[in-house]
Formats: sequence, C-alpha cells, structure tokens
Amino acid sequence: MTVTKRKVEVCFTPALYNEFRNDDAIVVIVDILRATSAIITAFMSGAGSIIPVATLEEALAYKQKGYLVAAERDGIVRDFADFGNSPYNFRREVIGGRDIVYSTTNGTRCIMMASHSYRVLIGAYLNLNALVDYITADNRDLIILCAGWKNKFNLEDTLFAGALAEPILEHDHYHTICDSTRASIDLWNVARHDLTGYIEKAAQRHRLKKNNLDDVIGYCHTPNLTRVIPVLKDNLLVPLEIT
Amino acid sequence: MTVTKRKVEVCFTPALYNEFRNDDAIVVIVDILRATSAIITAFMSGAGSIIPVATLEEALAYKQKGYLVAAERDGIVRDFADFGNSPYNFRREVIGGRDIVYSTTNGTRCIMMASHSYRVLIGAYLNLNALVDYITADNRDLIILCAGWKNKFNLEDTLFAGALAEPILEHDHYHTICDSTRASIDLWNVARHDLTGYIEKAAQRHRLKKNNLDDVIGYCHTPNLTRVIPVLKDNLLVPLEIT
Repeated sequence: MTVTKRKVEVCFTPALYNEFRNDDAIVVIVDILRATSAIITAFMSGAGSIIPVATLEEALAYKQKGYLVAAERDGIVRDFADFGNSPYNFRREVIGGRDIVYSTTNGTRCIMMASHSYRVLIGAYLNLNALVDYITADNRDLIILCAGWKNKFNLEDTLFAGALAEPILEHDHYHTICDSTRASIDLWNVARHDLTGYIEKAAQRHRLKKNNLDDVIGYCHTPNLTRVIPVLKDNLLVPLEIT
Repeated sequence: MTVTKRKVEVCFTPALYNEFRNDDAIVVIVDILRATSAIITAFMSGAGSIIPVATLEEALAYKQKGYLVAAERDGIVRDFADFGNSPYNFRREVIGGRDIVYSTTNGTRCIMMASHSYRVLIGAYLNLNALVDYITADNRDLIILCAGWKNKFNLEDTLFAGALAEPILEHDHYHTICDSTRASIDLWNVARHDLTGYIEKAAQRHRLKKNNLDDVIGYCHTPNLTRVIPVLKDNLLVPLEIT
C-alpha cells in the first residue's frame, strides 16, 4: 500500500504566501513577538473570543461598541484602548469570559490571507506540543506562515517554524521538499540550547528594547504553558474544541 | 570621529527585492546552481561579454544575429542553441573572445531588477575572495540578491550569501541589522565543513539529478578559482576592470 505523504512547508513572510496557497492545508500563523503569543495568552486567561483587526480605525469602532480593545503603535497604548499588545496585559481578572479586539497589522493580514484554507491555527511556543499533537492526528498538508517584519524574513518566527516542523516530520505521514523548512529546522537547532541568547541577534529584539517592551521575550519563548489552540471561525478566533 | 557604517543585507528571493531597493548599493546576484557559476566560468574562459536574456524567444533572436547561445529548458538543450546552461559548456576553445547569450529566467530577472543600483556584480563560490576584496575596498551598502527558485527561498544561494556576508562583516566599516543576513551566516556555518553533503538536502539538487545535470554541483561549490568579477554595464555583463 502506498501512503500519500503530506507536505510540510514554511513561508517566511506574508509577501511570499501566494507561492504556497493550498486550500486543503492547515495553516499555522506565527508572530512570536508578540501577536500570536498574546492571543494564546488571552485564551489561557479565559477570553471568549478574539477579533483580530488590522487598523486602529477598526479597533476604535469596536471599542465604541463596548469591546475590550488591545491597541498600541510604536509601543504606546492608544488613548481609546483598554491596554497595549503585550501578552502581560491579558490577565484573567480583566478579560475572563470577555470578547477581545486585538489590533495587529501583520498578524491580522496573515490570518485573513490564509482564511481560504482548511483550517487556520494560531501558534507560538506557549502551545507547541498541543499543536504538534493536533496537527499530526489529522492527515493534511501543513503550511507554517511566519508574520515576519514588514514583508521581510525574521529570526524569531523562523526558529519557531523549525521547532514545530521538526517533530511533525518525525511522523511517517509527513515529508518535506521545502528548502525553507530545512533552513528553519537547522536554525532552530543552532538556537535551541540558548534561545533567548540567540534572540539577542534578532532585529525585533532591539525594536522592543528601544520601547521598553522587551520584558516579554523570555515569556514568549517558554514552551508548553497551555494546550489551548486558537482557531479561526467566521473571522473570529476561538479556542479549538478537540473532540 | 563617527564613521558611518555600511549595511549588509541578504534578499532571499527576487519577490522580496522591493523591500531592499537602494540606488546607492552594490548588488551581488547569486544563482549558484547554475547561472552565476556558469557566467563566471564563461569569463574565466575568455568570453568577451555576456548578454543575459530571460526568454527563449530573445535567445533565438540573438542566435539569428550570429551570437553563441546557451539555452535549455527542463534540462534539454534547445534545438537552435549552441549548448546548454551548464558551466561545463563554457570551454575556452569554444567561446574565447566571443560574445555569449545566456538564457536564464530567474537570473536575468534579478540582474535587470537591480540595474538601478550603483553596481551589479555576479557572484558565486568561484570568485568569492575576489568579491570580498573588491566590495570591502569600496564604501557602499551591500545587498546580496539570491535568485532562489520560482520566487521561493533556496538553500544553495543562501549558504553562499552567508559565505560572502561573514568575511565582509569582519571589516569595521560594515554592520548588519538584517535577520536574513544573520540566518545566512548561521546556515553557512552549519554547512561549510561538508558543503556538498549539506546540499544533498536542497530541492534544486534533486531537480538537477532528475535531469542528469548534477555533475556540476561540486564544481559550483569550489571557492576561488578566479579573480574575475562580471559587472553589468549597459545591459551587458563584462569582466570588471579593477583599477
């Protein structure tokens, strides 16, 4: 019996996504510093749903309808918003049971551009093993879509892509002929034994430091704090119900 | 005295080049398997100039004007052409002193899209040290533009980008804040001690093997066989005259 192997591919930036489009694939969106780490944290704290929006105008419109809104630009919380975009803002006492609007230009763009596909999941170190288990229990091609930085490749999302692709490829029903996937795994293996030390090289680390937002870096690189996997359903992110 | 440091950046595919455009930069075009390795080889064998063309129609038109033409698709030399695109075709007895037309879809696209910049150079392992010496003797930003594969990242061009960026960054007047450059250097250091072994992973290696064109892989990864650097001048590639 010939078993059809499923493909694992890594797309380094949304600017390259059209080369990877595949309606039948599971797409994992990755924006480690900080959008996908923050979204997972919100569900860890009991959020009901998250509405990802790309612009501050949309965020403001939701605020006026009574939603809790996370919105900052260049590290400054916007006047109308309830808090900024750091995962540390999503504490259970503030957001348990609430619907949250999360403003993130790049992350939202990735989520929407992948919405044609079989399933869109939100990934970060925080839910790494849960992702591996959920994805490999299915039998689908996998695309790991890195948010990157302004259409460019970034290190922190690529390392996570390697951390996710490597254990998935250990399962017999997956293979890869994708050079980006090979590179991600090799970079992950260079970095994994001192991940936050390696991240010192990343441009985003310096952007966050400049704005005193770098306190989240250790947290955002902590594996397996939760089994929650946010999934896109009708333009809303909700916690995946594993049946 | 404050010295302005020059940037080193690596662009993984022509699809991302607009994010890097810089009129004042030196751009090195890299297509290790096989276009830039073949073009350098042609000059090593005494070619007068090389006209890079993107389509077979252009190649045929030049053939009808009497040029020597290298053109193949899917590993098969085209009927009208004098030879295929392998570096091994560019032997001195055939092409010494002649002007050559080289048909390469992706390589030509890269050369033309960078033509606005201060200088466009052709790079490969064959002329690695000559490139380092020439570039660092100047005081310009550097963009290493990888041809990639159909708009996607590839391993073989990225490894060379790392091999070129690393020694250039050892010079005081260069720095980088480019995550792609960091990744290229780290991948180069994973691969460098067994380069052709590492290239076994690359998708292009398997494409070439399928067409029995993989005999060039060792040659295309041989460093410093020449000091020749092809440079773009009025849409023609000619050997750089180092003054």
